Amino acid sequence: MSLLVVGSTAFDTVETPHGKAVDCLGGSSTYFGLAARLFAPVRLVSVVGADFPPAHRQLLESRGVDLAGLEQKPGKTFRWHGRYSADMNSRDTLDVQLNTFGDFRPMVPAAYRDTPFVFLANGSPSTQRSVLEQMARPKFCVADTMDLWIERERDGLLDLLRRIDGLIVNDGEVKQLTGKTNLIQAGRACLQLGPKLVIVKKGEHGCFVFSNFFHYALPAYPTEAVVDPTGAGDSFAGGFMGYLATSDSVSLWNMKRAVAYGTVTASLTVEGFGVERIAAADRNVVERRFHELQQFVSGS
Amino acid sequence: MSLLVVGSTAFDTVETPHGKAVDCLGGSSTYFGLAARLFAPVRLVSVVGADFPPAHRQLLESRGVDLAGLEQKPGKTFRWHGRYSADMNSRDTLDVQLNTFGDFRPMVPAAYRDTPFVFLANGSPSTQRSVLEQMARPKFCVADTMDLWIERERDGLLDLLRRIDGLIVNDGEVKQLTGKTNLIQAGRACLQLGPKLVIVKKGEHGCFVFSNFFHYALPAYPTEAVVDPTGAGDSFAGGFMGYLATSDSVSLWNMKRAVAYGTVTASLTVEGFGVERIAAADRNVVERRFHELQQFVSGS
Repeated sequence: MSLLVVGSTAFDTVETPHGKAVDCLGGSSTYFGLAARLFAPVRLVSVVGADFPPAHRQLLESRGVDLAGLEQKPGKTFRWHGRYSADMNSRDTLDVQLNTFGDFRPMVPAAYRDTPFVFLANGSPSTQRSVLEQMARPKFCVADTMDLWIERERDGLLDLLRRIDGLIVNDGEVKQLTGKTNLIQAGRACLQLGPKLVIVKKGEHGCFVFSNFFHYALPAYPTEAVVDPTGAGDSFAGGFMGYLATSDSVSLWNMKRAVAYGTVTASLTVEGFGVERIAAADRNVVERRFHELQQFVSGS
Repeated sequence: MSLLVVGSTAFDTVETPHGKAVDCLGGSSTYFGLAARLFAPVRLVSVVGADFPPAHRQLLESRGVDLAGLEQKPGKTFRWHGRYSADMNSRDTLDVQLNTFGDFRPMVPAAYRDTPFVFLANGSPSTQRSVLEQMARPKFCVADTMDLWIERERDGLLDLLRRIDGLIVNDGEVKQLTGKTNLIQAGRACLQLGPKLVIVKKGEHGCFVFSNFFHYALPAYPTEAVVDPTGAGDSFAGGFMGYLATSDSVSLWNMKRAVAYGTVTASLTVEGFGVERIAAADRNVVERRFHELQQFVSGS
């Protein structure tokens, strides 16, 4: 069993009430990969510039992230500079330079095309669809999206939703996508657009999971130490897909456990700047937090 | 076993995206009482004016709310007029007339003084303390408060917190009270102020429960039909205290079940204007929702 992610790789400059980190390794495929590798080997498809240092490659490869699909082109790597609000619930983008990511046309290596579990990180729906078309009928394909695509490439997104198994979005986005103001109605309406599974991320409030067979709510891990929220959503997706890729079936039981593992990996990511905390994590700390989370939400 | 609430009784005029209700029965003691009576008889201490109609008395008494402590004075009943935002997560007070509630000095009838379970609904901490002093060592006393008292009567509130068993507040208030920006830190810091139990209401995101022995998170009941959020917090408190008052001990297990029942009664309240839905509810619908909520949050 294995897992593929297509997304961005970036240098992030992040300002939060807890400090500032400059040009640290980031990007959706990175955060996803460093979370998912805690469960299963990950194949990464992305693009960087000539300025991507060997040390970053080494970090990823040493954690079990396969970089055969990481294209290196002349020019510079995608750069993002953001600043979080005092309560860290919102952020402003101070600068973004797409660089080589601007005309990213993902090429899935031939050896990756039969990967059964596929995550299409946030990106243009047409780019996400082009990846899906290169895959040989994945067992379970999940996509992320954002308000930009819901607004500007709605038709392409609706088309994609008819082709994938799961969608991960946040609460504002699922309301924007479906036109519903009530979150439960929005989640149910989103299922009508195609995916069998809709996971609605609610930040510090955990997530909702909608499917045709069950709806489920899981609070976030009770962390006291949020330092940098960047990458939480992609780390959530990585833990979720990573666990699912190693379980024996995509069942109700495994889906709920996978959501809990995603919740745990997201909680690790936010406790350090950039990827430092998720890159340093091991399966022991993951299992410990998984168990603590179960206690935290258990009715008995 | 029985239960006492001290709070306001009011005529509310409420505007939400779903319509407007004028001068409908409301107030913290009313919402609490109509939720708690689903579990146990409730003794109510409050004040109204000469304009309080017999029909409202009859509504409450027919539901098992004892009104021996409801004082009727010359003048008018407390009136509130509020308008909710489009997403119903915030509201503005358009008009408030304290009337007879303005100089409310609660007098607990002698027969009520040994009531074991006591809820001090939101009010001035000095008023809440005066009630506690009239009681003969309650088994379990819980108070609600709001930003107004945290800001203007902080010392009185801190004094009260050293005397009560539980505090129910919302997330903004517990941060304001403790000076912590992280909600988990805020809940834990609040335990240091005296209460054994701190329940942090998070509206549509459910609640957190903090105690010295366990922390617990419970999502809200997944309602699709929020019409009027007024009274949700007091109905939550009523369901919580109502269940606790009938259980055999104030144990961890019963505390978690009580929080779930409070979550259920709050969900019923918000689905109608004013008290119409909670007044019409019976134990069957409560148990059905309790079971559905368990399914919604169950990891298996």
